[in-house]
Parts: sequence; structure tokens; C-alpha cells
Amino acid sequence: MTTNEIVTQIQKKKSFLCIGLDVDLHKIPSFLLEREDPIFEFNKAIIDATHHLCVAYKPNIAFYEAYGIKGWKSLEKTIKYINQNHPDIFTIADVKRGDIGNTSSMYAKAFFEDLSFDSLTVAPYMGKDSVEPFLAFKNKHTILLALTSNTGAFDFQTKLLTDKALYQHVLEVSKSWVNSQNLMYVFGATKAEFLVKVRDIMPDNFLLVPGVGAQGGNLKDISKYGMNDNVGLLVNSSRAIIYASADEDFAQMAANSASKLQEEMKKLLFQKFTSLKN
Amino acid sequence: MTTNEIVTQIQKKKSFLCIGLDVDLHKIPSFLLEREDPIFEFNKAIIDATHHLCVAYKPNIAFYEAYGIKGWKSLEKTIKYINQNHPDIFTIADVKRGDIGNTSSMYAKAFFEDLSFDSLTVAPYMGKDSVEPFLAFKNKHTILLALTSNTGAFDFQTKLLTDKALYQHVLEVSKSWVNSQNLMYVFGATKAEFLVKVRDIMPDNFLLVPGVGAQGGNLKDISKYGMNDNVGLLVNSSRAIIYASADEDFAQMAANSASKLQEEMKKLLFQKFTSLKN
Repeated sequence: MTTNEIVTQIQKKKSFLCIGLDVDLHKIPSFLLEREDPIFEFNKAIIDATHHLCVAYKPNIAFYEAYGIKGWKSLEKTIKYINQNHPDIFTIADVKRGDIGNTSSMYAKAFFEDLSFDSLTVAPYMGKDSVEPFLAFKNKHTILLALTSNTGAFDFQTKLLTDKALYQHVLEVSKSWVNSQNLMYVFGATKAEFLVKVRDIMPDNFLLVPGVGAQGGNLKDISKYGMNDNVGLLVNSSRAIIYASADEDFAQMAANSASKLQEEMKKLLFQKFTSLKN
Repeated sequence: MTTNEIVTQIQKKKSFLCIGLDVDLHKIPSFLLEREDPIFEFNKAIIDATHHLCVAYKPNIAFYEAYGIKGWKSLEKTIKYINQNHPDIFTIADVKRGDIGNTSSMYAKAFFEDLSFDSLTVAPYMGKDSVEPFLAFKNKHTILLALTSNTGAFDFQTKLLTDKALYQHVLEVSKSWVNSQNLMYVFGATKAEFLVKVRDIMPDNFLLVPGVGAQGGNLKDISKYGMNDNVGLLVNSSRAIIYASADEDFAQMAANSASKLQEEMKKLLFQKFTSLKN
């Protein structure tokens, strides 16, 4: 999927919402547990109820790996279901990988080719040659961890190198990598005030912003400091949407929860792009 | 597995060799491709031929994920085979994970409980709360990326914070994490001269050293600068051992290749621990 196609979808749906499909069998409605593939059934219902409200789905692969081969089957069915029924939706494999070159190539093959995800998340710690194998794929996007939404982000990411924080260095250095136009960045919603600095370094790239909802991030501040002329934001919410209810009505409640965020996004988009109102 | 059990095994086998089971279907003997599960058959033959020469096996999970559900089945069979037939061997899931707390817990469950690995590798970028969920498992080991063996390591890991390099900061900070006694560290063999500094900060912990063999690391230097009173080293070699031959004799040739490294290790162990000679 090209960046333009993502932007077009945002304009059409008046939303930059990404829904995190982090499925925990302890949290989904119990009646689903009797089905043959409860994880897929849950995802399918959530997707059917929310696809018009969001522009991206992001399964965190940990939640699938935790169930071994069964989990992988659920993941395969989920991504196939999205690609077949909603090919306009941007898909993110939240894997936070990154390894020496030949190994990163194997991961790229698994997620970009075999599973047909549009993008995946990568940790930058191992540097250029651990990321470039992902960047080599045309119209696939590599989402680099820059500043994450957890408290541990302050352990290293915000540490000052002689003149700048590590995450700023990650942003600057990664701009010089081959095919860096395929880069997006993870930027935790709980740190909206840092976005000013990020946009100084990185005016154009898309940011994937987790941490809205359960983790406490504020959509208004993120938009204020992070939105660019292409919108340039995908805001993710997982738990606050998919676990809005654990009853029979879970999918409708998920849609309600997504709808609230999407309404807020619509307002913020109208403020920035007055032309969208027509 | 306790650290003492690892040390006992090193003394018994006169080896601190770890063999990387990074199986690529393009590289294994072609006659195996006709079998129902070529990856497992290859691993089984390598394990049968080398288990007396090494103290650890380290499958890099990328090579299994690249084959989807089939790959996961091969991984499950491989780890079960090792645990059932060679319960004294230390197993490392080379996954380089690390995510917000609840997600790291899911990965810990998958690799420590469901697959029964003794350890896994973790990237430190997301800090304390992304690593502590792994450390909570008793007699399981978490191997933190410190200084990796690829050229990209110089992009961030060796960058100077005001007074020290990022990887040194990772070492120091991680010492204060809850259950930090369960930490080991990845330290690339191609950077043996840095080991002096590492042992200043970290005299006791085990180091997992990749990059010997195909990546050009030098076993003598690593031992000189990195060995401590518990040996404190697990040296990994993948390609140079498992792809020593692509013919019918591949397992025997892998054993020969492992044996060469083990002989070198035996000499280095004798130099350091004269008591082992008896």
C-alpha cells in the first residue's frame, strides 16, 4: 500500500484510527470460547463492526504466539480476512523485530510476503543493517520504535547523547538509510510534548501513535503537535476498543468505542483541513 | 536451568559452545527436502551428531517463522527433542523481543512455559518494564542485547552518552532491575576489545557471544578478555557448523566443525582452570 493510498483513506473515512487486535482469551466474551477458533471469531466480529471507522488494524503478534500453532492459524486467518474483505485497510504486524541482516530478511519474508502485511514494527537498537532488509520491499512500510509509550522509555530512549536524546538520534540517523522513504515511526501518545521536536526532524513521515485510551494519551495534543499536511498520524487504540464489553454485544460496543474516537478525529481533521468539510 | 547447572555442564564437556540452529531450506542437504519435516530432520541429525560437543542450542526464531505454521511445528518438535533427549543442554530462543509489560508477559509465557526454553534474547530499547516480565520466571534466563556483532551496532550502541556508551548504560541500568540475577547479555564476538569494559561493569553474568565463525570473531580474544571464574561465556556458532556440508555427511561434518571449536575451547579452559586437567 502506498502512502498516498493511506492518506486517501484517512480523508474518506475522516479517521486516522488504528485498532490494535491484541486478543487475550481471558478477556474476550466467554461464549466465544466454545467456537473452533475463538481468536479469529472475535477478530472477525470486531472487524465487521469497526472497519468503516478505522484506517488500520494492528495485531500484536505476541498475543498470537502465546497460543503457539493455534495462535498462528488465527493470525493467518485474520490477516487474510482483512486483505480479502477490506483491501483498503492498512495492516501493521506489531512484532518489534530487528536482527542481523540475513535474519531480518527472513522476518521480512514472513510478514510482508507470506502473511501479506503492509507494514511491521522494528526496534532500532541493532542499527542500519538490521532495518534496511525491511526497507527494500516496495510499498511496504517499516515502523521504527522511536519513543515508546511505556515508562521504560525513559531508561534509554530519552537519555542524552552529547547534544540530543537517543530517540532523536534514531530519527536523524535513520533518515540516511537506503529506502528511508518507507519508514514510519512509533511515537508514544503519552509523550505528546516531544512531538514538536520530532516534527522538526521529521516533518513528513507518518507516526504510529499507541497509548491512547488505556495508557492515557491525549488525542488533542497529539494532533496539535504531530499532524502534518498529510495528516501523518495513525493513532492506535487496542484494549479500550476491543474489550469495551465482554458480553454478546461486544462487537457493537467496540464499534461505539471506536466511533467516539473517530468523531473526535473528524473534528480535529476539520480544524486542520477546512476543505474536508465539503 | 540454574546457572550452576550450566557451569557444571561446561566443566564436564570442556566446552562453552552454543550451536545456532538457523535452518534455511535453501542451504540444507537437498535429499532432506523430500522428508515430511525437513527442518526438524535436519535439526535432529545435527543434534544427534553434536550434543556432546556443545552446552547450548540456539534456534533463531526468524528462520522458523519464515515458514509459518509449518515452521512453528518444526520449532516445537526441535525444542521437545532437545528437552527429552538432552535435558542437560541449555536452550536459547533467539527472538530479540521486548514490548510493553503485558505483551512481554505473553512472549514470556510462549517461550518459557509453552515451548519450555531455558532462556530468550531481548532488545533493551524499551527499558525496564519491557524486560522485567521475563525476569520474573525462576531459573529462566533473559539475554539482553548489549553490543551486537553487526556493523549497525555502531549506529547507536556505541554512541556516547555524556560520559559512556549506550551499551554500557544498558549494562549498568539493567543491574538495578528486579531479578537481574536472571540476566545474561549478548556481546558480539567481533568486538572482543570492548570486553574489558564489560567485565569491569559486569564481572559475574554470563555473556552469549555470537559472531564466531562466519562473522569473523576470534575465540582466543573473547576468552582472554571475557572469561570469568564461572567461565561466564557461551560462544555461539551457527552457519560455520550446521552448513559445513550440504551432502549426506552433513551431520558428521557439522560434528567435525563443532569439534574443532570445542578442542580450542578445551585448551582455553585448561589455560584458565588448571584443575580441569585432572
